[in-house]
Amino acid sequence: MALVVMKFGGTSVANIERIRNVAQHVKREVDAGNQVAVVVSAMAGATNQLVGFVREVSPLHDAREYDAIVASGEQVTAGLLAIALQTIGIRARSWQGWQIPLETDTAHGAARITKVDAGRLVERVAGGEVAVVTGFQGIEPTHGRIATLGRGGSDTSAVAVAVALNADVCDIYTDVDGVYTTDPRIVPEARRLSRISYEEMLEMASLGSKVLQTRSVELAMVYGIKLRVLSSFAAPDSIKPVSIGNLQDLGTTVCSEEEIMEGQVVSGIAYAKDEAKVTILKVQDKPGIAARIFGPLAEAGINVDMIVQNVTPDGAHTDMTFTVGANELPRALQVLEKVKQDLGYLDVRSSADVVKVSIIGIGMRSHAGVAAKMFQILSDKGINILAISTSEIKVSVLINSDYAELAVRTLHEGFGLDAT
Amino acid sequence: MALVVMKFGGTSVANIERIRNVAQHVKREVDAGNQVAVVVSAMAGATNQLVGFVREVSPLHDAREYDAIVASGEQVTAGLLAIALQTIGIRARSWQGWQIPLETDTAHGAARITKVDAGRLVERVAGGEVAVVTGFQGIEPTHGRIATLGRGGSDTSAVAVAVALNADVCDIYTDVDGVYTTDPRIVPEARRLSRISYEEMLEMASLGSKVLQTRSVELAMVYGIKLRVLSSFAAPDSIKPVSIGNLQDLGTTVCSEEEIMEGQVVSGIAYAKDEAKVTILKVQDKPGIAARIFGPLAEAGINVDMIVQNVTPDGAHTDMTFTVGANELPRALQVLEKVKQDLGYLDVRSSADVVKVSIIGIGMRSHAGVAAKMFQILSDKGINILAISTSEIKVSVLINSDYAELAVRTLHEGFGLDAT
Repeated sequence: MALVVMKFGGTSVANIERIRNVAQHVKREVDAGNQVAVVVSAMAGATNQLVGFVREVSPLHDAREYDAIVASGEQVTAGLLAIALQTIGIRARSWQGWQIPLETDTAHGAARITKVDAGRLVERVAGGEVAVVTGFQGIEPTHGRIATLGRGGSDTSAVAVAVALNADVCDIYTDVDGVYTTDPRIVPEARRLSRISYEEMLEMASLGSKVLQTRSVELAMVYGIKLRVLSSFAAPDSIKPVSIGNLQDLGTTVCSEEEIMEGQVVSGIAYAKDEAKVTILKVQDKPGIAARIFGPLAEAGINVDMIVQNVTPDGAHTDMTFTVGANELPRALQVLEKVKQDLGYLDVRSSADVVKVSIIGIGMRSHAGVAAKMFQILSDKGINILAISTSEIKVSVLINSDYAELAVRTLHEGFGLDAT
Repeated sequence: MALVVMKFGGTSVANIERIRNVAQHVKREVDAGNQVAVVVSAMAGATNQLVGFVREVSPLHDAREYDAIVASGEQVTAGLLAIALQTIGIRARSWQGWQIPLETDTAHGAARITKVDAGRLVERVAGGEVAVVTGFQGIEPTHGRIATLGRGGSDTSAVAVAVALNADVCDIYTDVDGVYTTDPRIVPEARRLSRISYEEMLEMASLGSKVLQTRSVELAMVYGIKLRVLSSFAAPDSIKPVSIGNLQDLGTTVCSEEEIMEGQVVSGIAYAKDEAKVTILKVQDKPGIAARIFGPLAEAGINVDMIVQNVTPDGAHTDMTFTVGANELPRALQVLEKVKQDLGYLDVRSSADVVKVSIIGIGMRSHAGVAAKMFQILSDKGINILAISTSEIKVSVLINSDYAELAVRTLHEGFGLDAT
């Protein structure tokens, strides 16, 4: 007997027929003797409708009220799935975040889970009842208000519930059948990865591969929760029920590095289109200048990603290039305009016509020359690199967005990721 | 300064424009220095959509899950109205039933309010913040689950909040501008009543006049809460703000008998179409027979209304006629079939082609001959009476539904209710 947490996203519960299908996936696990908690998102479209209502009332709205409103979507799905399960003879009840309680901090709209007080949940699940938990939300205990975890937050809810229940596995059912070496819409030769390390998945997620929310992977890594990415569109009886000691590799398993036998040097190619490039021309090159540029941006809550600094020929000035999220570009330019006097720069140029392409792989740690190979491959195609950033297991380059698909395809082939 | 509870139903909050209009009604009271709590229903159509989802999953569903699902409608409206109020400079926050908490019994789907622990609500409202409360729902404290109060339950929520806050008035904003002497769709001469007693309103409500939920009127009567029925479609500035000691008669005021100067003998004519008639033919007329018929029906949760018993010519048998809600007729017939052996009756006849027409008025208490006058008016039009029931302030007759409109019109005129 295993304890399984199953998470189903919005497209997996988009209508009553799909919810019935989810119930069959759950039934398979229950019939195999497993204890089950299910975490559900809102029905596809429901959250957008609710967000639309909020924006129609006011573009500037109280985040606490926003949360109270949008959290209702998951409440509907949880109740409907509980009924669907009961209808096929499975004991089940819905749990809203505040009922568990799943506690969060006060950062409404993007709250972090602080504590899951799962005593009652553990008891009921141990008693054989399926717990259907609302994803995406918890309760902020100081004021007793509903707080949501931000888009994709149901993944994090699922991992938090898995941690609280000490689950054997957390299966994330989604509309794709796993994590791919790159986006199959761009590279038809992309292969599904049967295993990927938490670290690689984190880089993939943060670089725009939208399969899992970044925080859910972090949480799974910290607590050693094995994640599997599976397709909810697969026939329920085509998947083998979870069995401890014989946990099949279905879809993609996200696990610790040690559990991955043959680590490839590069596991995947990610790209992020929602980047914007800002260049500050001819800033005076004096000590502390970086702090005086990036300090005000940080205070305004703007995330700066890649940073490149060039000294101009005269030696007294520098050009500073960095990237921010494309949606944060207008605010970033405002901030820079405000501090122009203080910084004494010549001009600011910006462009959203850029894309960040990254190669990711834990094998890079022990292999030299991976970055050089990447630059060579791009150079061979005449693709100009605007900025570079690296981590232990990742190399990212910023390029003109016209070359995005070409770069991804060429790198995928060049690093031997194409399906044979 | 007055403390005002304002309740807005589904059509009054049907879309964002209507919600903004509601915010203006609230602003009028706040600007006048009043303290305000608002109780809201789900946006028109929202509850039906949610109920539709539930029924699509299963016609026989867990009432606790049903409640968790349908309660989400009011949560959306409460949040949206709070934001709409903030947008026009009014401090406001939403309160879900469980956050107050507004406690109920365990009768999910038709729960009764048992306690409103309004300490925090009182504090915040006294501090000048508008409380926007979700109607229709509370929390069942033993298991911590959401419970709904049944259709129209938001009226009862509003009165319960008014009791807890010791409000000066509970204004029920709806899509009509008050309570009428009868349904104006049937009798264009119907007049709006400026005042009506709790007792009369109770009879009107229980007899199918859908302006207020019966339980809300009971609760208002017990605690002496003055109710006003107003139109939310009136321009917000066309209504004078509440002022203690000078509480204008707007719409219809529901209050105690003593506050009504000139009580009419008959205040209104109500009719209920959703009645069904059952006749049990030739039951053995022995002691305790009524208990053996109506006991099993009560056990099955079927409400029996009018009862008529005729002794048949042979003296040993009786025909028993009674009415039940039309939607309960199939179940009632099942119950009777089960006890046929025990009762030893000849046959059961039933018909849903009946309507109950009632005259209501506190003046009846001191005026004789009101029932006789009613029977004469109907007789003059050749309308046959199938059953009769009376209370201190009401006479009801069951007639063939073909004559419903004729009966209502003729009685309205006959008792001098037509507008002059």
